[in-house]
Amino acid sequence: MSFLTNKKLLIVGAGGAIGSTMAQLAAVKKLSSNICLYDPYLQGLEGVYEEMRHCGFDGINFEFTDNVEKAFTNASFIVSSGGAPRKEGMTREDLLKGNAQIAADFGDNVKKYCPNCEHIVVIFNPADITGLVVLVKSGLKPNQVTTLAGLDTTRLQSELAKYFNIPQYEVTGCATLGGHGEKMVPVTSDVKIQGKPLSSMNIPADKFAEIRLKTVQGGSNIIKLRGRSSNLSPAYVSIEMIEAAMGGKKFTLPAGCFVKDGMYGYKNVCMAMQSTIDANGVSYTQANLTAEEKAELDASYEHLCKMRDEVIGMGVLPAVADWSKYNKNL
Amino acid sequence: MSFLTNKKLLIVGAGGAIGSTMAQLAAVKKLSSNICLYDPYLQGLEGVYEEMRHCGFDGINFEFTDNVEKAFTNASFIVSSGGAPRKEGMTREDLLKGNAQIAADFGDNVKKYCPNCEHIVVIFNPADITGLVVLVKSGLKPNQVTTLAGLDTTRLQSELAKYFNIPQYEVTGCATLGGHGEKMVPVTSDVKIQGKPLSSMNIPADKFAEIRLKTVQGGSNIIKLRGRSSNLSPAYVSIEMIEAAMGGKKFTLPAGCFVKDGMYGYKNVCMAMQSTIDANGVSYTQANLTAEEKAELDASYEHLCKMRDEVIGMGVLPAVADWSKYNKNL
Repeated sequence: MSFLTNKKLLIVGAGGAIGSTMAQLAAVKKLSSNICLYDPYLQGLEGVYEEMRHCGFDGINFEFTDNVEKAFTNASFIVSSGGAPRKEGMTREDLLKGNAQIAADFGDNVKKYCPNCEHIVVIFNPADITGLVVLVKSGLKPNQVTTLAGLDTTRLQSELAKYFNIPQYEVTGCATLGGHGEKMVPVTSDVKIQGKPLSSMNIPADKFAEIRLKTVQGGSNIIKLRGRSSNLSPAYVSIEMIEAAMGGKKFTLPAGCFVKDGMYGYKNVCMAMQSTIDANGVSYTQANLTAEEKAELDASYEHLCKMRDEVIGMGVLPAVADWSKYNKNL
Repeated sequence: MSFLTNKKLLIVGAGGAIGSTMAQLAAVKKLSSNICLYDPYLQGLEGVYEEMRHCGFDGINFEFTDNVEKAFTNASFIVSSGGAPRKEGMTREDLLKGNAQIAADFGDNVKKYCPNCEHIVVIFNPADITGLVVLVKSGLKPNQVTTLAGLDTTRLQSELAKYFNIPQYEVTGCATLGGHGEKMVPVTSDVKIQGKPLSSMNIPADKFAEIRLKTVQGGSNIIKLRGRSSNLSPAYVSIEMIEAAMGGKKFTLPAGCFVKDGMYGYKNVCMAMQSTIDANGVSYTQANLTAEEKAELDASYEHLCKMRDEVIGMGVLPAVADWSKYNKNL
């Protein structure tokens, strides 16, 4: 019974398919001895809580609640799957309005009930926007809020492995940057196929376009195949992210994070960067981009700015110039 | 990347809620580098396979198939969630007919394609019967086939902990024996509450009856709360069982296993026993029973014999006298 921390881990949306999987994975990985399950849908949540008890985990105290104050008070780490689910045919952008408001309320709750929270992983879509809204509203530092973007990278890795008909883990160095949406940018400069640079493998352009399309459509493909949104993979990768923030194994897939310092000339968005999450939170570096990739990343950034401004226009997010009034770290 | 084994782990029913959770837990716990996902429902199965790829597990080769021969060939360890699901209001016994036939086919496949299989965990209900049918048909040894029964025990532990308002893990020594159904027998002789014998705690009879009822109804309560059968807890506990059979952490909750040697005067059934699973398979000992518990266990045994004979009457399972023709280990 040794846990990574005894501090409170809060799973928001724990009544749902992703959140319940997160709760179980956090327990199996012994992230915390103190796991709080929150969901406004109390009945389903109680079912998940009961299932966690039936697992018989040694040394873990679970609690469940639909009370926001009880849930957020003293939470040190938060993973949030809570948002309206994406349905077949919906783009991530369709979810914008409702989920941005949920994110705003979420950020307010953090500020009110757990301003000393150490790290938040936001995964509800469009995650680049919801993560940004949470950051602005919560008052936390930019290195303390990340969004799920790593699945785009593992999907790229998976599709490349299929193309070369090799084990997936023999494809290394994948990174998919920018927005977690249709404008994501697969960055291939550091990709190695069984140790050899991808650039030396001469994938025909039409084949690479196919790989890229399958990467982008990885999430919607799950909906087609399973008849529902993915739950296993987003839960797994986001739990790996919070594990890293708790001081466990470093997380080196790209994470969505706030870009403030003008790297690439970008600022005031959340987007997937070449990043590392560890006990100090998230940090990022400049990726090795081709001219074409840079142009794509510029386009992805522009798209994110547009979405951000749309949410500002909706009144859910304050104007950029006012952010520092809400969050002195911005 | 160190795995408990590189031998093939087969997850039967991996397209479903329980089986897909099993697949992920097996990967997270690094049970095997070689995990095969089988389900007759190929489309959903592919979705689960894709999700496993999107997790980006290092060093694990997943395959998925709806082909029985491909799935079972050379499988060393099998966990099977595959059966018709239990619906609200159905008893485990309602499932008897269909699932006994699925179990018979399963056993035949083991005999045909992986006679050297080391251990099988069967969890589809009524597990005492399906496990028995699998054992007889597969030709494996009795110590190589177990059925999921541990959830009854963790439910008893959970309900006792609620009653005493203490952390669940401070209740130790619970065991629920006999059939995994309404005639299960909570055995309390070795139960300790924060180190003190339960017998010294004087729970009023009506309160214990309540605890017992909640234990028995633990599974149907999940259906009521979540609107669907449990998936997280059966997947977790059964993966702990196969982990133990692979040589990992010993499994000491009761497992359903074949009783051949006349312990308590019982024979030729599968039922939950005070047992241990380790690399040698399952072994069991006589539990410390009160006279009342012994009478209940007798009744549970009789009920299991009746169900077994019903399945023999259906022609799905051979008559007991003929078992040795199918399985020389019986």
